[in-house]
Amino acid sequence: MKEVRVGICGLGTVGGGTFQVLARNASLIAGRLGCNIRVARVATRTPKDEFDLTGIPFSQDVFDVANDPDVDILVELIGGYETAKELVMTAIRNGKHVVTANKALIAVHGNEIFAAAEEKGVIVAYEAGVAGGIPVIKAVREGLSANRIDVIAGIINGTGNYILTEMRAGREFEEVLREAQALGYAEADPTFDVEGIDAAHKLTILASAGFGVPLQFEHAYTEGISRITPYDITHAELLGYRIKHLGIARRRDNGIELRVHPTLVPKSHSIAQVDGVLNAILVDGDAVGQTMYSGPGAGDEATGSAVIADIVDVARSVACGSSQRVPYLGFNPDAMENLGVLPMEDIQSAYYLRIQALDRPGVLAKVASVLSEHGINIESIMQKESEVTDGRIPVIILTHTVQERQINRAIEDLEALTDIEDKVVRIRAENFH
Amino acid sequence: MKEVRVGICGLGTVGGGTFQVLARNASLIAGRLGCNIRVARVATRTPKDEFDLTGIPFSQDVFDVANDPDVDILVELIGGYETAKELVMTAIRNGKHVVTANKALIAVHGNEIFAAAEEKGVIVAYEAGVAGGIPVIKAVREGLSANRIDVIAGIINGTGNYILTEMRAGREFEEVLREAQALGYAEADPTFDVEGIDAAHKLTILASAGFGVPLQFEHAYTEGISRITPYDITHAELLGYRIKHLGIARRRDNGIELRVHPTLVPKSHSIAQVDGVLNAILVDGDAVGQTMYSGPGAGDEATGSAVIADIVDVARSVACGSSQRVPYLGFNPDAMENLGVLPMEDIQSAYYLRIQALDRPGVLAKVASVLSEHGINIESIMQKESEVTDGRIPVIILTHTVQERQINRAIEDLEALTDIEDKVVRIRAENFH
Repeated sequence: MKEVRVGICGLGTVGGGTFQVLARNASLIAGRLGCNIRVARVATRTPKDEFDLTGIPFSQDVFDVANDPDVDILVELIGGYETAKELVMTAIRNGKHVVTANKALIAVHGNEIFAAAEEKGVIVAYEAGVAGGIPVIKAVREGLSANRIDVIAGIINGTGNYILTEMRAGREFEEVLREAQALGYAEADPTFDVEGIDAAHKLTILASAGFGVPLQFEHAYTEGISRITPYDITHAELLGYRIKHLGIARRRDNGIELRVHPTLVPKSHSIAQVDGVLNAILVDGDAVGQTMYSGPGAGDEATGSAVIADIVDVARSVACGSSQRVPYLGFNPDAMENLGVLPMEDIQSAYYLRIQALDRPGVLAKVASVLSEHGINIESIMQKESEVTDGRIPVIILTHTVQERQINRAIEDLEALTDIEDKVVRIRAENFH
Repeated sequence: MKEVRVGICGLGTVGGGTFQVLARNASLIAGRLGCNIRVARVATRTPKDEFDLTGIPFSQDVFDVANDPDVDILVELIGGYETAKELVMTAIRNGKHVVTANKALIAVHGNEIFAAAEEKGVIVAYEAGVAGGIPVIKAVREGLSANRIDVIAGIINGTGNYILTEMRAGREFEEVLREAQALGYAEADPTFDVEGIDAAHKLTILASAGFGVPLQFEHAYTEGISRITPYDITHAELLGYRIKHLGIARRRDNGIELRVHPTLVPKSHSIAQVDGVLNAILVDGDAVGQTMYSGPGAGDEATGSAVIADIVDVARSVACGSSQRVPYLGFNPDAMENLGVLPMEDIQSAYYLRIQALDRPGVLAKVASVLSEHGINIESIMQKESEVTDGRIPVIILTHTVQERQINRAIEDLEALTDIEDKVVRIRAENFH
């Protein structure tokens, strides 16, 4: 099998996540790509024992990666501006493709970097720079390519969204910020996050990719959330609105709006319902209407997921040969698994059961005992005396996750009880956690 | 500029939407693709006057498209099984790439179609078959290519979700279904939608693209929503759950779960909050965690958006020459617009104002009059006598959308009033409708 050789610069949070996922899912990724991804060099100033670098050339100087002829794609995960820019420009000059998670670098120096890459005919990919693992750059550049995009609005900083979510309980900004710092959600110096600078970097990139305009971070407006009070949050709720720290880009005839600030959004809108450290991006296109993309906007493997998706795309476009296309079902035919569909009896689910029981003493105990005999644990049980009609009372049960086979047999036994006359109503339940 | 020639089969809802968007956004799409998309032939049994087919060869027989040497990509939008299959297989035999919105065709005959396409080296693309304009196939096949995907769960039938949403108000299934039929959300024969067959087609495709297993629609389990009662919906809510008609695919070691049925999901989960005709798909990957994709799952231009995205991808892979890659910022450099960022005074927004006023008669009138002088309309105003402290009372106002310049001037005038001593608190508001 052919291979593409990547050189990873930086082995911190994102670098570490990328390295681990590349190792763990190597054969699965090769099955999708039709080509192996080999880590041909790693460079980091602070090597960590937790990563097995056996057989991988290692340096402390990241420029060794940019100058290594055995590297096809340089993966820039060192962060920051100046060194990162020099590193990326060196890689481009050396004819290497670049994958980066560095939003600051792209927002501030992207125009120059893309011009240099265009001249050398190399790819610079930056999905991981915006909203972590959510493939929103791909959605905007490719998935919505038919649309004139008019608005992009996003919760694109998890720290700020976490703080605003917690403040809905009436807590003050400063208190929640200290807690977020203790939990590791916020940095010791939280300015980048809570003042909207990080979000403005991402918004700048989204706006340019969506509207087809140059990157203009220097003109983005930023306003932080430090002056939002629980009082305003409460009164916004009374008006039917929720306060979110949004990045908003809007295409107008004479220019674009590019701004990050606290914003009231209708509580009923799906973007208002994105809580905690999650990110979500709303994109409004003239053909598709509003689509939204949400998920974890940060984290080692989540961001690594986007880094690797970019490596796969670059490999597909060039390094593995131009005949590589996306396979029909995502995986190359010889990498497909012959897994069959399980019979329903074998699926696993929780269950909501509604049992129409005769209103007699001891019915609840009989029902519970049937479930217990079949190894079914009960999460909740509800029986309301006020709902007795014609001597019958509904018993409502939510079970833990079991095999459907167990529920089917338990229902047979329940329906055989003399205290139960009707069929048992059964609806499946899923927690997705 | 090079061109790619598409032949559109079917000019109904999706065909019409595709045709219109291709015409309206032709230059924008060419700016992203670097190549023109030309409609080289249209075939439909029932031509409609609303489409301007001037200069486009037209037939009533869709096989004319499959046999036209001037067509590079056949776009199958006729729906159904047998004719559609024959049409697509003919196009493949003739070496044409295929773009289709036909989920039933792919779910049932996809394995055979993909094998034939693989042999001829042509692409078959089907983004529009799943969840309308939401680019979820792209997310699963490309955006999440680093992940072992474990679960895909989706609200992938808008009709069913609309009915369940309306039933939360205590209405019966039959009543809401009749209303949905009157509104055009549900077909005269609603079986496909409410019994989960349509959803099972889409789920089958999602599962195969996500897990790398063959399409196995014949083994999918389907259970409809016709037996869900308002009673169960209410009691599920009391337990903290909402009932959704979900398609659920789960990868297990010995097979996959593939099932469509009413499902209780925790109210706090984002998928529970997707209401009305919207679609949403949750994807759980081992690296990225849970990401969700939501938006309109049907509609002429929404689905057309996905059809065109596929045409662009096919053109990029092959028909426009293999040097075509996705441009850095989505548009080719010479197609970028030189739109600048507007100054904040020029942006348009609604505003939440909190004015700390002296508790005197007539203050509200003065505030309203200042806003009115600046042409600012009030959407809501709130003043609570119970909130008077130290002789001051907060007045809370939500305005309609205006220019920021107007608000800035109005705030200056408000702060100059003798009845107002503190600074006015101002937070922007957006409705996104």
